[in-house]
Amino acid sequence: MTDIDPWGDVEVADYAATMAQFGIEPIESVADRLPDNRLVRRGIVFGQRDLETVLDARDRGDPFAVMTGLMPSGVFHFGHLAVLEQVRMFQEMGAEVTLCAADIEAYATRDIPIEDARELVVEEYLLNYVALGLDLDATDFYFQSEAGNDHLVRSKLFSRYVTQNEFEATYGTADPGKLASSLTQYADILRPQAPENGGPKPTVVPVGIDQDPHVRLTRDVASRYRETAYLKPASTYHRFMRGLQGGKMSSSDPRSHIALTDGVSEAKRKIDAAKTGGRASVAEHREKGGVVEEDMVFELLAFHLVRDDDELERIRREYESGAMLSGELKQIAKDRLETFLRKHHEKREAARPEVEQYLAERESANAGFEVGT
Amino acid sequence: MTDIDPWGDVEVADYAATMAQFGIEPIESVADRLPDNRLVRRGIVFGQRDLETVLDARDRGDPFAVMTGLMPSGVFHFGHLAVLEQVRMFQEMGAEVTLCAADIEAYATRDIPIEDARELVVEEYLLNYVALGLDLDATDFYFQSEAGNDHLVRSKLFSRYVTQNEFEATYGTADPGKLASSLTQYADILRPQAPENGGPKPTVVPVGIDQDPHVRLTRDVASRYRETAYLKPASTYHRFMRGLQGGKMSSSDPRSHIALTDGVSEAKRKIDAAKTGGRASVAEHREKGGVVEEDMVFELLAFHLVRDDDELERIRREYESGAMLSGELKQIAKDRLETFLRKHHEKREAARPEVEQYLAERESANAGFEVGT
Repeated sequence: MTDIDPWGDVEVADYAATMAQFGIEPIESVADRLPDNRLVRRGIVFGQRDLETVLDARDRGDPFAVMTGLMPSGVFHFGHLAVLEQVRMFQEMGAEVTLCAADIEAYATRDIPIEDARELVVEEYLLNYVALGLDLDATDFYFQSEAGNDHLVRSKLFSRYVTQNEFEATYGTADPGKLASSLTQYADILRPQAPENGGPKPTVVPVGIDQDPHVRLTRDVASRYRETAYLKPASTYHRFMRGLQGGKMSSSDPRSHIALTDGVSEAKRKIDAAKTGGRASVAEHREKGGVVEEDMVFELLAFHLVRDDDELERIRREYESGAMLSGELKQIAKDRLETFLRKHHEKREAARPEVEQYLAERESANAGFEVGT
Repeated sequence: MTDIDPWGDVEVADYAATMAQFGIEPIESVADRLPDNRLVRRGIVFGQRDLETVLDARDRGDPFAVMTGLMPSGVFHFGHLAVLEQVRMFQEMGAEVTLCAADIEAYATRDIPIEDARELVVEEYLLNYVALGLDLDATDFYFQSEAGNDHLVRSKLFSRYVTQNEFEATYGTADPGKLASSLTQYADILRPQAPENGGPKPTVVPVGIDQDPHVRLTRDVASRYRETAYLKPASTYHRFMRGLQGGKMSSSDPRSHIALTDGVSEAKRKIDAAKTGGRASVAEHREKGGVVEEDMVFELLAFHLVRDDDELERIRREYESGAMLSGELKQIAKDRLETFLRKHHEKREAARPEVEQYLAERESANAGFEVGT
């Protein structure tokens, strides 16, 4: 495929062709230098560009950074976990963490009011992130709408280094909202390297392949901008988990995902309604076995709910052999989900005072963007 | 004409057609509500849009504003005086004054480093403005690169309210540098109405016709933006003084203009070399008279150097009758220039401490944009 639209639906059938076209290397080339990690072992994180720069800095004891953004446009669901797990991995490796809430982009490209974005960021992202182990005190978290004068000025100066042709070739449009948002994103991705943050340092951005256009143009800007030095950011790429009904997992379609704020019974009902790779009858299933590649419940187990590789392999064998029925597979998923969600919801509530204190301290240090009267 | 490019050469032959196309009214419709003013009397300021809103506010005793920007790309010359004189007129009428130094635009569209722009702003604009009577202490002066978080965020939020089609139809391009700069300009023009500046108020922007595209799209943004209320800005339009050689007066061609920092003898040499409406021989000139419409020296007298209408009319009659030769016309200009420039240069130096103190106070209140390492 040649066209990737970071604002559109994602249907990336052919990762290999995309990797070849845009110079993305297999993650295997550096996997032995990474901490043992389920996402890498299972090929969920499949690609990288320039990740050696980050690993070399780690080995030398030099500063390095991981940067990620979040789009406050809906709930936080299991499809979002892969990015956070990588951020945590790099944070544990010693990376500085920069976390950007893309409220300007949500406003300019998805019509989401700044105040609504703020609430979504807290309820759907920060509480879940902290519950999932992110060390917020060691994170440079900010809203784009409070990124500061110099950050926003830089995003405008970057405009000199991208042509309309490049923009249209990369995004398929020069829509003002998308252009202004993208320029902001380039400053976001380069923020760990800003003069006030210590200058150039290797930085990795974990993204879905749909976000690679932003990474590529940021790399161009980094190498062309003349006022301060930037290293081209590195990146990692993860596969998208499919939706529970097959097809795309979407924040705006509750049947397609399980949100980390879903109630236990709601989550179980979604599993019951999920598309499986089971056969038309029990007899046929016993004879031919289930098809894991077409089973969205197995995908959820493989991405996140079963952490032990041997156990996952045992489940796969039993399901493929026909010994395990789809209902039994679903029961495993429901049991795991119940355990996970109950514990996670407790952790969320435990995280609330920390998140609220963190935001209050930020606000007392920062007047914040006043939307208006 | 239908295409006006605010970044390109200006050749506006047919003001009437442009006025009709874009809804610009003759200044005469409101001239009796303005203070007596040479630029208006002589038709140098020829048009306006919505200026009643500003005059009504003045009559009611309500707040109103005048906003202008300056592009730090070269010297300040006589062609720039018409804007400043209008700003002063509105300031004397009671308007709040906002003065923007467009250093982001100079960087993004003309490749001028931020530091160079800063020096040009002080040496070529602020010193001349104060010497020419601007009350800097009563002026909200700022660099775009120090406009502040909220100003810059707003310029990005505005991106949602302009389509690529509108942008291209208005400017003929969706070049990223021009788009990012234009969005900044919309925030600049609306700055007097920002929440932190007291909210909506009638605002007039004195511009050359080449800047009207910015005014028109700002008016669209003002009426479409949903977060805070803005009134559509009003505008006035002035004729461009032609260059001393005929054709365009340009900051980048020293022969075409007299800069307010030109030395007296340099200015006189430029007058000596200027294009006149004189005839090929003295005999022919005595017989047919000079052609004031083709005389760049007469244009300079009429725009700025002769303030008394009766005196200007006397000079015109003598020149057109052939009684006055081009050399004599030039001598009048040289005498006036010498008086003006000597006095102006004194005023510039007298203004320097005030400007430096003003900038120092701004900087202590505002860290400023740090370009680099």
